[in-house]
Amino acid sequence: MKKTKLSDIGEFGLIDLLTKDISIKNKSTVYGVGDDAAVINNSDKQTVVSTDILTEGVHFDLIYTPLKHLGYKAVVVNLSDLYAMNATPRQITVSIAVSGKFSVEAIEELYQGINLACDVYGVDLVGGDTTSSFSGLIISITAIGEAKKEDLVFRNGAKDTDLICVSGDLGSAYFGLQILEREKKVFEKDYNSQPDLSTYSYIIERQLKPEARKDILETLKINKIKPTAMIDISDGLSSELLHICKQSETGCKIFEDKIPIDHSSTIASDELNISQITAALNGGEDYELLFTVPLKDFDKIKGLKDIYIIGHITDEKNGKNIILRNGETVELKAQGWNNIKN
Amino acid sequence: MKKTKLSDIGEFGLIDLLTKDISIKNKSTVYGVGDDAAVINNSDKQTVVSTDILTEGVHFDLIYTPLKHLGYKAVVVNLSDLYAMNATPRQITVSIAVSGKFSVEAIEELYQGINLACDVYGVDLVGGDTTSSFSGLIISITAIGEAKKEDLVFRNGAKDTDLICVSGDLGSAYFGLQILEREKKVFEKDYNSQPDLSTYSYIIERQLKPEARKDILETLKINKIKPTAMIDISDGLSSELLHICKQSETGCKIFEDKIPIDHSSTIASDELNISQITAALNGGEDYELLFTVPLKDFDKIKGLKDIYIIGHITDEKNGKNIILRNGETVELKAQGWNNIKN
Repeated sequence: MKKTKLSDIGEFGLIDLLTKDISIKNKSTVYGVGDDAAVINNSDKQTVVSTDILTEGVHFDLIYTPLKHLGYKAVVVNLSDLYAMNATPRQITVSIAVSGKFSVEAIEELYQGINLACDVYGVDLVGGDTTSSFSGLIISITAIGEAKKEDLVFRNGAKDTDLICVSGDLGSAYFGLQILEREKKVFEKDYNSQPDLSTYSYIIERQLKPEARKDILETLKINKIKPTAMIDISDGLSSELLHICKQSETGCKIFEDKIPIDHSSTIASDELNISQITAALNGGEDYELLFTVPLKDFDKIKGLKDIYIIGHITDEKNGKNIILRNGETVELKAQGWNNIKN
Repeated sequence: MKKTKLSDIGEFGLIDLLTKDISIKNKSTVYGVGDDAAVINNSDKQTVVSTDILTEGVHFDLIYTPLKHLGYKAVVVNLSDLYAMNATPRQITVSIAVSGKFSVEAIEELYQGINLACDVYGVDLVGGDTTSSFSGLIISITAIGEAKKEDLVFRNGAKDTDLICVSGDLGSAYFGLQILEREKKVFEKDYNSQPDLSTYSYIIERQLKPEARKDILETLKINKIKPTAMIDISDGLSSELLHICKQSETGCKIFEDKIPIDHSSTIASDELNISQITAALNGGEDYELLFTVPLKDFDKIKGLKDIYIIGHITDEKNGKNIILRNGETVELKAQGWNNIKN
């Protein structure tokens, strides 16, 4: 029997493989695998469902992640998927598996964060499962939301000349992680070290306690702008933009100097000697929104708070490119850590 | 800071603790934590959601569990929760975390089982997440179904004099597990052993590849019987019946000689020297339905295929009891392995 290692085909390869034979059987299943969330038609409003699983040692390191922050983040990353559909989250289910090393108080702390996120985003925790594991903590959350059919935004609606926009700033969560990893190494050598991380508080918070951009959707709604395509940035700008282009069958052109990067990220970039554009393109975990709007909406969208136009959609044959500050055109690649020099 | 071990308060204690502060904020959240599934009101039909997480070494042992069976079972245990609400499953989301020891082919095999269950039960796989873990395989599934509001059956509707019914037979999955565990020990001593398990094929299948009792709900519907309370038997009859009694604020009286036990379980019981009634009460994983019906439905329900009346609901002050074959009255306890002698 043939044995292919998971690493040989990668996560997306595996997903493609596992989902290729799925066929939709129910009329109520409007949209299944392949976007940020699934859509289920229940009469006049559509039910929108998304799920994520977080495992200790892979998604989080409890050495520097407070459990309350972890619970908050675990919810937020799921809600972010629903917002990226232009849906309103209403309920979540939470399943956890925990090893014997966790105390009741530790799990309570985790749920404090979960409940706080539920309060902040107006979501009900409606179910779940709690079990043991032989291997640390695993958190699986399913978020359920609703949207009018005509309000939903998928990944596949981008058109040639559409403006490409992002919210907030990019790369911060990645730099926050690098700082935390650096301090962990210091701590492991000297348990008495008390690092002053106040300079990095913004980027560390971006890593440990991100927010979902509910406010951006409200801004768009107030300004009567409906994105043609949208996705949340969990894996880095490159990867997400390539998803939109692939599913919309388009190309894209973005500009390095338009990509919003926070001042703290620039400082961390210099200190850690990691290119800030590389972090923005490939760092991930920013949970900002990436979306496209018709060119005709330019006047409506320009100058809106915390929304940045970083480029535009092109015909597919023009490729997917970023124009660097020096004028050089570089092809966008997912997880392309080596294709852009510092 | 106080440190309470998880084992000190148990799973139900932990759930109570974690859910006590939850308040419902959305009108669409009809029923949240506290039953087999959550209910979300989307216009004329209600959306019903349930979730489970399965971890290697806790819920399954890959030494004797074929991955295809595991995938099938992981889906079935979730659907069983929806059927226990008298709802119709329509969609599932599947999240898995896998360690490097699994090949692509192994994960495909798992999904073959998942897809087979989807086909058998007419359910669409509409989303999920795939990630790595440092610790074997974790499967988290959320099942989503629909029901007319008036068809839903909760745990809290049982009334004094209601008949207590179960489907199928009880204890088989537990005996199947004991046989598998026994053969594993033999195998670990002698890798060339080739056990003949044909005598146990029924109980082993009950453990490895259970079914959800969709057919029982169809039978009840055809015969115009609506249960007053219902739950699926995942933790053993005792535990589930105590859930119904607690939430319905009733007592119960069941009879040992009425509890359906398959002949293969009786054989395994003798061989393993484990009481069959203990296995039925506390073994778990049978995924049969436990439900109550009004006494007036006695003529309608008696003699229905694969449905057994095992006792009746009583006033709360009468307690929760089982009458043994010898006439002795014993209080029902959850996970009470020692309170009934062989």
